[in-house]
Amino acid sequence: MFEAAELGHRISKSEFDKEEPELHTKLLKVQRDLRETSIPVIVIVSGVEGAGKGEVVNRLNEWLDTRGIETSAFWDESDEERERPAHWRFWRRLPSRGTIGIMFGSWYTAPIINFVYGDIDFPEYERQLQRITRFEHMLSEDNTLIVKFWFHMSAKDQRKKLEKENKNKKYSPLLKKFSKRYKEFFQASEHAIRMTDLGVSPWHVVEATDRRYRDITVGRILLDALEKKLKQHEKSGTRSSAKKTSPKKLNPDEISILDHVDINKTISKKDYNKQLKKYQRELHKLTWAARQNKRSSISVFEGWDAAGKGGAIRRMTAGMDARLYKAISVAAPTDEERAHHYLWRFWRHLPRAGYVTIYDRSWYGRVLVERVENFAREVEWERAYHEINEFEEQLHEHGIIICKYWVHISPEEQLRRFQEREKTPWKLHKITEEDWRNRDKWEAYELAINDMVTHTSTEYAPWTLVPGNDKRLARVEILKTACQRLEEALS
Amino acid sequence: MFEAAELGHRISKSEFDKEEPELHTKLLKVQRDLRETSIPVIVIVSGVEGAGKGEVVNRLNEWLDTRGIETSAFWDESDEERERPAHWRFWRRLPSRGTIGIMFGSWYTAPIINFVYGDIDFPEYERQLQRITRFEHMLSEDNTLIVKFWFHMSAKDQRKKLEKENKNKKYSPLLKKFSKRYKEFFQASEHAIRMTDLGVSPWHVVEATDRRYRDITVGRILLDALEKKLKQHEKSGTRSSAKKTSPKKLNPDEISILDHVDINKTISKKDYNKQLKKYQRELHKLTWAARQNKRSSISVFEGWDAAGKGGAIRRMTAGMDARLYKAISVAAPTDEERAHHYLWRFWRHLPRAGYVTIYDRSWYGRVLVERVENFAREVEWERAYHEINEFEEQLHEHGIIICKYWVHISPEEQLRRFQEREKTPWKLHKITEEDWRNRDKWEAYELAINDMVTHTSTEYAPWTLVPGNDKRLARVEILKTACQRLEEALS
Repeated sequence: MFEAAELGHRISKSEFDKEEPELHTKLLKVQRDLRETSIPVIVIVSGVEGAGKGEVVNRLNEWLDTRGIETSAFWDESDEERERPAHWRFWRRLPSRGTIGIMFGSWYTAPIINFVYGDIDFPEYERQLQRITRFEHMLSEDNTLIVKFWFHMSAKDQRKKLEKENKNKKYSPLLKKFSKRYKEFFQASEHAIRMTDLGVSPWHVVEATDRRYRDITVGRILLDALEKKLKQHEKSGTRSSAKKTSPKKLNPDEISILDHVDINKTISKKDYNKQLKKYQRELHKLTWAARQNKRSSISVFEGWDAAGKGGAIRRMTAGMDARLYKAISVAAPTDEERAHHYLWRFWRHLPRAGYVTIYDRSWYGRVLVERVENFAREVEWERAYHEINEFEEQLHEHGIIICKYWVHISPEEQLRRFQEREKTPWKLHKITEEDWRNRDKWEAYELAINDMVTHTSTEYAPWTLVPGNDKRLARVEILKTACQRLEEALS
Repeated sequence: MFEAAELGHRISKSEFDKEEPELHTKLLKVQRDLRETSIPVIVIVSGVEGAGKGEVVNRLNEWLDTRGIETSAFWDESDEERERPAHWRFWRRLPSRGTIGIMFGSWYTAPIINFVYGDIDFPEYERQLQRITRFEHMLSEDNTLIVKFWFHMSAKDQRKKLEKENKNKKYSPLLKKFSKRYKEFFQASEHAIRMTDLGVSPWHVVEATDRRYRDITVGRILLDALEKKLKQHEKSGTRSSAKKTSPKKLNPDEISILDHVDINKTISKKDYNKQLKKYQRELHKLTWAARQNKRSSISVFEGWDAAGKGGAIRRMTAGMDARLYKAISVAAPTDEERAHHYLWRFWRHLPRAGYVTIYDRSWYGRVLVERVENFAREVEWERAYHEINEFEEQLHEHGIIICKYWVHISPEEQLRRFQEREKTPWKLHKITEEDWRNRDKWEAYELAINDMVTHTSTEYAPWTLVPGNDKRLARVEILKTACQRLEEALS
């Protein structure tokens, strides 16, 4: 795989001086065009230690307008990063649409190093590489251009470089450390490159011994990739918004998962007060225990309008020390959020070790409102099931406890509550025209909910369907479930 | 100071039930009005351990629309926070305009605890409180409403509460710990409250023994403060934008600081190449040493259009390991940035321990372009000197090394470069109509620069005025200065 990168490619100074200005100019031009698009660009700069990755980064910063680039180096993790799933640190550095993110080191670095040093075994190594392929696939489906460079140098050239740097008294701690394991790195990298050389994000192995050749090659490849992507983008027009099809409804004969919810279960006021207190006290204890065990948890609340999510959340937070949780109310995204993959804004709020995040509405909007209202195209919400499962799997593997509640009410009960809201001064703000409009799409939502639960209820992140016609009962059920799941996870 | 909060204030259930719905409704209304304004609201919830601060937070979350609130609890610092000036963690949680940030714990917590436990002495305690007053002043001048609650409880009531929680087996580690030092906390808090009871952000000491009294009082005070602020805001009209006055110019007779820059100094190409290499090598070593010593640094680049900032930055970054620095190119703010104090976007990018951030343009825009172009009102840019010095002082105290460069060229040289840019394909993107317009304001900028240097060149953060007519010389001078300052700081 690296043979073609040991052939001694060179570019003379005069050739370089001839080509460089043109390349420079063209890169600036495509970068300007890029700015007007919804395309985020990721440039991965990786490869053998000593191949001059830093120099390439500098060169790119020279060629491109720095106002549209952000370079991120990934090496020493902070505790904020360590306390979250491994990919969190990459999510927080993803470039926004129209800009270029240069990743110095990247999601490839840790798996390769950990494998070479024996911290993970081969199956785990492969698993991590698989996860990367899915990650890149997902980004690319979201219109991201991913250009991956691997800079190669023979063992002999690397040794020469090391000697030279030693002579210059240049401090290169990693070069010294890694050059001792050249062969192991060679093998591990080859495997990584082979496994992740995807059509949507191919690897470019570049011979790095001659700087001029290396840099010009990078420039050419990047320019070519950008031009192609822009052409494609132009052809597809401004990112075609979803066709306004009237949403599918659940077939009336079909039994929906929701039909199994015993919606009319009730609880007496006396029992409610007793049980509420009981579970709140238990939750208080359990969340403190989770904190001490550094186990995080997230609770996702979805449900019909006026199903009582807010009230249930308040009963839950009343049972926790306010230092331990954060409640995120999902409303319209900010422009920074809109400029990223739809999951970005949810990754953003993942709790640190031992803490709780409560999402009042969540990433499931993608397969609910965005589906029903045609905000997302069919392919987009269809692939979202997989993306969401992948996301939650990463949370689970990191030890995050996941609770998901669908609070279910009947259309009649909803109507009653809407009318009540319109009569109650401090509830009036909760009812809008949109809520009334949504009622007309009840069956379409039923189908979407049914599909959602079918596709995304997993062993590690199951949906809890909560009977909600009796608000009090719903609150107790939710608290009880939360306690059970925490208890299971902690024992 | 706490006497009035030990009088046994109570509210009966029937009174509470009568007042609560109205309060609730009114709070929702003002919150809705708030959303349309440029006012950020900070609610500080602090006080005696056991006074039910968490319950108050829950109550506020019940009364207000959660879509416009964010609650932040400050207790265990992450290393990302520890590695930056103490106020960084608060800056990152400041509410955006039109929203409410509930601060559970706040900038008051650490000084009080550290003083009580003897980690800081009295003068340092006072210094930290002074810093807080300036911080709150600054926020309030930026239109922030700050409402500070201190919940009080007598030693006896606190003991009772502790006993009750013990009986309920409620886990309250802090209550146990802090109740042993009731008296010390009492004294330290009283001092803090007295020192920071500002007109713009007064303290409200609330008796916390009776929950109903406590919560209703909080509701009333908050409502009152919001209503007053909104009324004020209405009166002042939509935040009056700056009057379009033609900017003042430097008096032609006056000698400007810039006149002392020997703008025509040059360097031979041979010397340049030699020195560039030399200082780049040195910088490489020094930045690695800084990394090992966990000393961060920032470099601020300001200068005339076409002064050669970009080229100088690239020569600087070429001398550093790309893992160690981040270059921030300051362009138009995002909407999240616009929704905060103007310094927020710069705080955001402060380096972690041992790293370097390079700002290509910076917070000095406030006293340069924003002043000259009337984007900021006179009072705004005038107070900015003080705000900036305060900001840089905090960086300095945290051990961050600060370098600030003004790259100076003559108007004739600028003209030459503009014309060159228009002729060079890969420089064309750097020249816009605006650059030409800015030239007409040369004298106004001269005055602004002169004032800026006068006001903000401090011992710990001096300006370096760089003669820039010879680009090469400028680069060498900058690199040399950077090396010197790092060397001094590290030795």
